[in-house]
Amino acid sequence: MVLGIDPGLASCGWAILPDSKTLSVCGCLVTTRADDLSNRLGQLYQQVVDLCQKYRVEELAIESLFFAKNTKTALLVAQVMGAIKAAAYHSGVRVFEYTPLQIKIAITGYGRADKNQIAAMVKQELGENDQLVNNHAADAVAAALTHLFTMRKDQLV
Amino acid sequence: MVLGIDPGLASCGWAILPDSKTLSVCGCLVTTRADDLSNRLGQLYQQVVDLCQKYRVEELAIESLFFAKNTKTALLVAQVMGAIKAAAYHSGVRVFEYTPLQIKIAITGYGRADKNQIAAMVKQELGENDQLVNNHAADAVAAALTHLFTMRKDQLV
Repeated sequence: MVLGIDPGLASCGWAILPDSKTLSVCGCLVTTRADDLSNRLGQLYQQVVDLCQKYRVEELAIESLFFAKNTKTALLVAQVMGAIKAAAYHSGVRVFEYTPLQIKIAITGYGRADKNQIAAMVKQELGENDQLVNNHAADAVAAALTHLFTMRKDQLV
Repeated sequence: MVLGIDPGLASCGWAILPDSKTLSVCGCLVTTRADDLSNRLGQLYQQVVDLCQKYRVEELAIESLFFAKNTKTALLVAQVMGAIKAAAYHSGVRVFEYTPLQIKIAITGYGRADKNQIAAMVKQELGENDQLVNNHAADAVAAALTHLFTMRKDQLV
Protein backbone atom coordinates (compact mmCIF):
# COMPACT_ATOMS: atom_id res chain seq x y z
CA MET A 1 0.00 0.00 0.00
CA VAL A 2 1.42 3.39 -1.05
CA LEU A 3 0.74 6.71 0.69
CA GLY A 4 1.30 9.70 -1.57
CA ILE A 5 1.89 13.08 0.08
CA ASP A 6 1.79 16.64 -1.28
CA PRO A 7 3.47 18.44 1.64
CA GLY A 8 1.99 21.69 2.95
CA LEU A 9 1.41 23.33 6.31
CA ALA A 10 -2.14 24.68 5.90
CA SER A 11 -3.22 21.93 3.47
CA CYS A 12 -1.34 18.67 3.11
CA GLY A 13 -2.65 16.35 0.38
CA TRP A 14 -2.66 12.58 0.89
CA ALA A 15 -3.71 9.56 -1.16
CA ILE A 16 -3.79 5.80 -0.61
CA LEU A 17 -3.20 3.58 -3.66
CA PRO A 18 -2.78 -0.21 -3.59
CA ASP A 19 -1.73 -0.21 -7.26
CA SER A 20 -1.43 2.16 -10.21
CA LYS A 21 -5.03 1.52 -11.37
CA THR A 22 -6.80 2.02 -8.04
CA LEU A 23 -7.33 5.01 -5.76
CA SER A 24 -8.54 3.72 -2.38
CA VAL A 25 -9.06 7.09 -0.75
CA CYS A 26 -7.51 10.55 -0.70
CA GLY A 27 -7.93 13.77 1.20
CA CYS A 28 -6.35 16.80 2.72
CA LEU A 29 -4.91 17.27 6.22
CA VAL A 30 -5.47 20.81 7.45
CA THR A 31 -4.01 22.90 10.26
CA THR A 32 -5.08 26.39 11.28
CA ARG A 33 -3.02 29.56 11.37
CA ALA A 34 -4.33 30.31 14.84
CA ASP A 35 -2.29 27.41 16.22
CA ASP A 36 1.46 27.67 16.76
CA LEU A 37 3.89 26.15 14.25
CA SER A 38 5.18 23.34 16.48
CA ASN A 39 1.63 22.22 17.24
CA ARG A 40 0.66 22.29 13.57
CA LEU A 41 3.70 20.17 12.68
CA GLY A 42 2.86 17.82 15.55
CA GLN A 43 -0.74 17.45 14.32
CA LEU A 44 0.45 16.63 10.77
CA TYR A 45 2.96 14.13 12.22
CA GLN A 46 0.21 12.42 14.25
CA GLN A 47 -2.25 12.33 11.33
CA VAL A 48 0.36 10.73 9.05
CA VAL A 49 1.15 8.15 11.77
CA ASP A 50 -2.61 7.42 11.95
CA LEU A 51 -2.93 7.09 8.13
CA CYS A 52 0.04 4.69 8.02
CA GLN A 53 -1.54 2.52 10.69
CA LYS A 54 -5.12 2.64 9.40
CA TYR A 55 -4.24 1.75 5.80
CA ARG A 56 -1.25 -0.49 6.56
CA VAL A 57 1.02 1.71 4.47
CA GLU A 58 4.30 0.13 3.35
CA GLU A 59 5.79 2.95 1.27
CA LEU A 60 5.44 6.73 1.30
CA ALA A 61 5.94 8.81 -1.86
CA ILE A 62 6.48 12.53 -1.39
CA GLU A 63 7.12 15.43 -3.75
CA SER A 64 10.54 16.83 -2.98
CA LEU A 65 11.30 20.48 -2.41
CA PHE A 66 13.61 22.50 -4.57
CA PHE A 67 14.93 26.00 -4.29
CA ALA A 68 11.80 28.12 -4.26
CA LYS A 69 11.18 31.77 -5.06
CA ASN A 70 9.61 32.26 -1.66
CA THR A 71 12.25 31.05 0.79
CA LYS A 72 10.08 31.65 3.84
CA THR A 73 7.36 29.36 2.50
CA ALA A 74 9.96 26.79 1.40
CA LEU A 75 11.42 26.67 4.93
CA LEU A 76 7.94 26.00 6.34
CA VAL A 77 7.24 23.23 3.81
CA ALA A 78 10.68 21.74 4.60
CA GLN A 79 9.70 21.55 8.28
CA VAL A 80 6.47 19.79 7.25
CA MET A 81 8.55 17.29 5.26
CA GLY A 82 10.76 16.64 8.30
CA ALA A 83 7.71 15.97 10.50
CA ILE A 84 6.20 13.64 7.86
CA LYS A 85 9.47 11.70 7.47
CA ALA A 86 9.61 11.34 11.25
CA ALA A 87 6.05 9.94 11.12
CA ALA A 88 7.11 7.47 8.41
CA TYR A 89 10.16 6.41 10.46
CA HIS A 90 7.98 5.96 13.54
CA SER A 91 5.58 3.80 11.46
CA GLY A 92 8.31 1.67 9.84
CA VAL A 93 7.40 3.07 6.41
CA ARG A 94 10.08 3.67 3.76
CA VAL A 95 10.13 7.13 2.13
CA PHE A 96 10.69 7.81 -1.57
CA GLU A 97 11.15 11.37 -2.84
CA TYR A 98 10.33 12.51 -6.35
CA THR A 99 11.12 15.88 -7.86
CA PRO A 100 8.34 17.87 -9.59
CA LEU A 101 10.12 17.09 -12.89
CA GLN A 102 10.13 13.34 -12.20
CA ILE A 103 6.42 13.48 -11.39
CA LYS A 104 5.55 15.41 -14.55
CA ILE A 105 7.50 13.01 -16.75
CA ALA A 106 6.15 9.90 -15.02
CA ILE A 107 2.52 11.04 -15.31
CA THR A 108 2.44 12.85 -18.67
CA GLY A 109 5.74 11.96 -20.37
CA TYR A 110 6.38 15.69 -20.64
CA GLY A 111 8.63 17.69 -18.28
CA ARG A 112 6.80 20.98 -18.73
CA ALA A 113 3.29 19.66 -18.15
CA ASP A 114 1.01 21.98 -16.21
CA LYS A 115 -1.38 21.10 -13.39
CA ASN A 116 -4.32 20.58 -15.76
CA GLN A 117 -2.39 18.12 -17.93
CA ILE A 118 -1.32 16.15 -14.87
CA ALA A 119 -4.90 16.13 -13.54
CA ALA A 120 -6.19 14.89 -16.93
CA MET A 121 -3.68 12.03 -17.03
CA VAL A 122 -4.41 11.05 -13.43
CA LYS A 123 -8.12 10.87 -14.29
CA GLN A 124 -7.35 8.81 -17.39
CA GLU A 125 -5.36 6.38 -15.27
CA LEU A 126 -7.77 6.09 -12.34
CA GLY A 127 -11.10 7.10 -13.88
CA GLU A 128 -13.25 10.05 -12.87
CA ASN A 129 -13.30 10.36 -9.12
CA ASP A 130 -15.05 12.98 -7.03
CA GLN A 131 -12.20 12.84 -4.53
CA LEU A 132 -9.80 14.32 -7.10
CA VAL A 133 -11.41 17.78 -7.07
CA ASN A 134 -9.02 18.86 -4.30
CA ASN A 135 -5.75 20.02 -5.89
CA HIS A 136 -3.56 18.93 -2.97
CA ALA A 137 -5.16 15.48 -2.93
CA ALA A 138 -4.67 15.22 -6.72
CA ASP A 139 -0.98 16.13 -6.33
CA ALA A 140 -0.63 13.44 -3.65
CA VAL A 141 -2.18 10.92 -6.08
CA ALA A 142 0.35 12.01 -8.72
CA ALA A 143 3.26 11.42 -6.29
CA ALA A 144 1.95 7.96 -5.40
CA LEU A 145 1.38 7.08 -9.08
CA THR A 146 4.92 8.22 -9.93
CA HIS A 147 6.23 5.86 -7.28
CA LEU A 148 4.12 2.94 -8.53
CA PHE A 149 5.14 3.56 -12.17
CA THR A 150 8.82 3.83 -11.17
CA MET A 151 8.71 0.64 -9.13
CA ARG A 152 6.88 -1.23 -11.92
CA LYS A 153 9.50 -0.14 -14.43
CA ASP A 154 12.22 -1.29 -12.03
CA GLN A 155 10.58 -4.68 -11.81
CA LEU A 156 10.35 -5.04 -15.60
CA VAL A 157 14.02 -4.23 -16.20
CA MET B 1 13.75 20.12 32.81
CA VAL B 2 14.74 21.97 29.64
CA LEU B 3 16.22 20.37 26.51
CA GLY B 4 18.18 22.84 24.37
CA ILE B 5 18.71 21.96 20.71
CA ASP B 6 21.09 23.36 18.08
CA PRO B 7 19.51 21.80 14.98
CA GLY B 8 21.74 20.17 12.35
CA LEU B 9 21.66 17.10 10.13
CA ALA B 10 25.23 15.80 10.51
CA SER B 11 25.67 17.17 14.06
CA CYS B 12 22.75 18.17 16.24
CA GLY B 13 23.72 19.69 19.60
CA TRP B 14 21.65 18.96 22.72
CA ALA B 15 21.80 19.98 26.37
CA ILE B 16 19.79 19.19 29.49
CA LEU B 17 19.45 21.96 32.10
CA PRO B 18 17.22 21.81 35.19
CA ASP B 19 17.88 25.52 35.89
CA SER B 20 20.00 28.41 34.61
CA LYS B 21 22.93 27.56 36.93
CA THR B 22 23.21 23.84 36.20
CA LEU B 23 24.18 21.84 33.13
CA SER B 24 23.13 18.21 33.71
CA VAL B 25 24.55 16.79 30.51
CA CYS B 26 25.04 17.78 26.89
CA GLY B 27 26.19 16.17 23.68
CA CYS B 28 25.86 15.89 19.95
CA LEU B 29 23.60 13.59 17.93
CA VAL B 30 25.28 12.54 14.71
CA THR B 31 24.07 10.98 11.48
CA THR B 32 26.22 9.84 8.57
CA ARG B 33 26.15 11.02 4.98
CA ALA B 34 26.16 7.40 3.81
CA ASP B 35 22.60 7.02 5.09
CA ASP B 36 19.62 8.42 3.20
CA LEU B 37 17.97 11.68 4.31
CA SER B 38 14.71 10.17 5.57
CA ASN B 39 16.59 7.66 7.71
CA ARG B 40 18.84 10.36 9.14
CA LEU B 41 15.79 12.47 10.05
CA GLY B 42 14.14 9.40 11.54
CA GLN B 43 17.22 8.68 13.67
CA LEU B 44 17.30 12.27 14.98
CA TYR B 45 13.56 12.07 15.71
CA GLN B 46 14.04 8.83 17.67
CA GLN B 47 17.04 10.12 19.60
CA VAL B 48 15.14 13.26 20.65
CA VAL B 49 12.18 11.10 21.75
CA ASP B 50 14.66 9.02 23.82
CA LEU B 51 16.26 12.15 25.38
CA CYS B 52 12.82 13.54 26.31
CA GLN B 53 11.90 10.28 28.01
CA LYS B 54 15.27 9.65 29.72
CA TYR B 55 15.57 13.13 31.23
CA ARG B 56 11.84 13.77 31.76
CA VAL B 57 12.02 16.87 29.58
CA GLU B 58 9.15 19.35 29.99
CA GLU B 59 10.22 22.11 27.57
CA LEU B 60 12.35 22.18 24.44
CA ALA B 61 14.25 25.34 23.38
CA ILE B 62 15.50 25.47 19.80
CA GLU B 63 17.38 28.06 17.77
CA SER B 64 15.11 29.18 14.94
CA LEU B 65 16.08 29.34 11.32
CA PHE B 66 16.17 32.52 9.31
CA PHE B 67 16.74 33.20 5.66
CA ALA B 68 20.20 31.77 5.07
CA LYS B 69 22.81 32.45 2.40
CA ASN B 70 22.93 28.74 1.58
CA THR B 71 19.31 27.85 0.83
CA LYS B 72 20.06 24.16 0.24
CA THR B 73 21.57 23.81 3.72
CA ALA B 74 18.73 25.86 5.24
CA LEU B 75 16.13 23.51 3.69
CA LEU B 76 17.91 20.51 5.24
CA VAL B 77 18.09 22.15 8.68
CA ALA B 78 14.39 23.05 8.35
CA GLN B 79 13.60 19.36 7.80
CA VAL B 80 15.62 18.53 10.92
CA MET B 81 13.57 21.09 12.86
CA GLY B 82 10.35 19.51 11.62
CA ALA B 83 11.49 16.04 12.75
CA ILE B 84 12.54 17.41 16.17
CA LYS B 85 9.24 19.22 16.66
CA ALA B 86 7.43 15.98 15.76
CA ALA B 87 9.54 14.23 18.44
CA ALA B 88 8.57 16.92 20.98
CA TYR B 89 4.89 16.57 20.07
CA HIS B 90 5.12 12.79 20.39
CA SER B 91 6.73 13.25 23.84
CA GLY B 92 4.23 15.84 25.09
CA VAL B 93 6.98 18.47 25.28
CA ARG B 94 6.26 22.14 24.49
CA VAL B 95 8.59 23.82 21.97
CA PHE B 96 9.98 27.37 22.29
CA GLU B 97 11.89 28.95 19.41
CA TYR B 98 14.49 31.67 19.81
CA THR B 99 16.16 33.61 17.02
CA PRO B 100 19.98 33.88 16.93
CA LEU B 101 19.55 37.55 17.91
CA GLN B 102 17.40 36.69 20.93
CA ILE B 103 20.01 34.15 22.06
CA LYS B 104 22.90 36.61 21.68
CA ILE B 105 21.10 39.29 23.65
CA ALA B 106 19.90 36.89 26.36
CA ILE B 107 23.39 35.42 26.90
CA THR B 108 25.69 38.42 26.37
CA GLY B 109 23.39 41.46 26.35
CA TYR B 110 24.86 42.29 22.95
CA GLY B 111 23.16 41.52 19.62
CA ARG B 112 26.37 41.26 17.62
CA ALA B 113 28.17 38.91 19.99
CA ASP B 114 30.34 36.28 18.29
CA LYS B 115 30.61 32.58 19.16
CA ASN B 116 33.56 33.12 21.50
CA GLN B 117 31.73 35.77 23.51
CA ILE B 118 28.70 33.51 23.86
CA ALA B 119 30.93 30.58 24.91
CA ALA B 120 32.66 32.79 27.53
CA MET B 121 29.34 33.91 29.04
CA VAL B 122 27.98 30.35 29.07
CA LYS B 123 31.11 29.24 30.99
CA GLN B 124 30.73 32.16 33.38
CA GLU B 125 27.14 31.12 34.06
CA LEU B 126 27.69 27.37 34.37
CA GLY B 127 31.37 27.16 35.29
CA GLU B 128 34.11 25.42 33.28
CA ASN B 129 32.79 22.18 31.89
CA ASP B 130 34.60 19.68 29.68
CA GLN B 131 31.34 18.92 27.90
CA LEU B 132 31.24 22.46 26.47
CA VAL B 133 34.17 21.89 24.08
CA ASN B 134 31.76 20.77 21.37
CA ASN B 135 30.42 23.85 19.53
CA HIS B 136 27.03 22.34 18.74
CA ALA B 137 26.54 21.24 22.35
CA ALA B 138 27.55 24.75 23.53
CA ASP B 139 24.99 26.31 21.16
CA ALA B 140 22.34 23.97 22.53
CA VAL B 141 23.26 25.10 26.07
CA ALA B 142 22.89 28.73 24.92
CA ALA B 143 19.39 28.02 23.54
CA ALA B 144 18.34 26.34 26.80
CA LEU B 145 19.82 29.18 28.90
CA THR B 146 17.98 31.75 26.77
CA HIS B 147 14.73 29.93 27.48
CA LEU B 148 15.44 29.74 31.23
CA PHE B 149 16.41 33.45 31.38
CA THR B 150 13.31 34.43 29.38
CA MET B 151 10.97 32.37 31.57
CA ARG B 152 12.61 33.74 34.77
CA LYS B 153 12.11 37.28 33.56
CA ASP B 154 8.50 36.48 32.73
CA GLN B 155 7.99 35.20 36.26
CA LEU B 156 9.48 38.33 37.83
CA VAL B 157 7.27 40.70 35.86
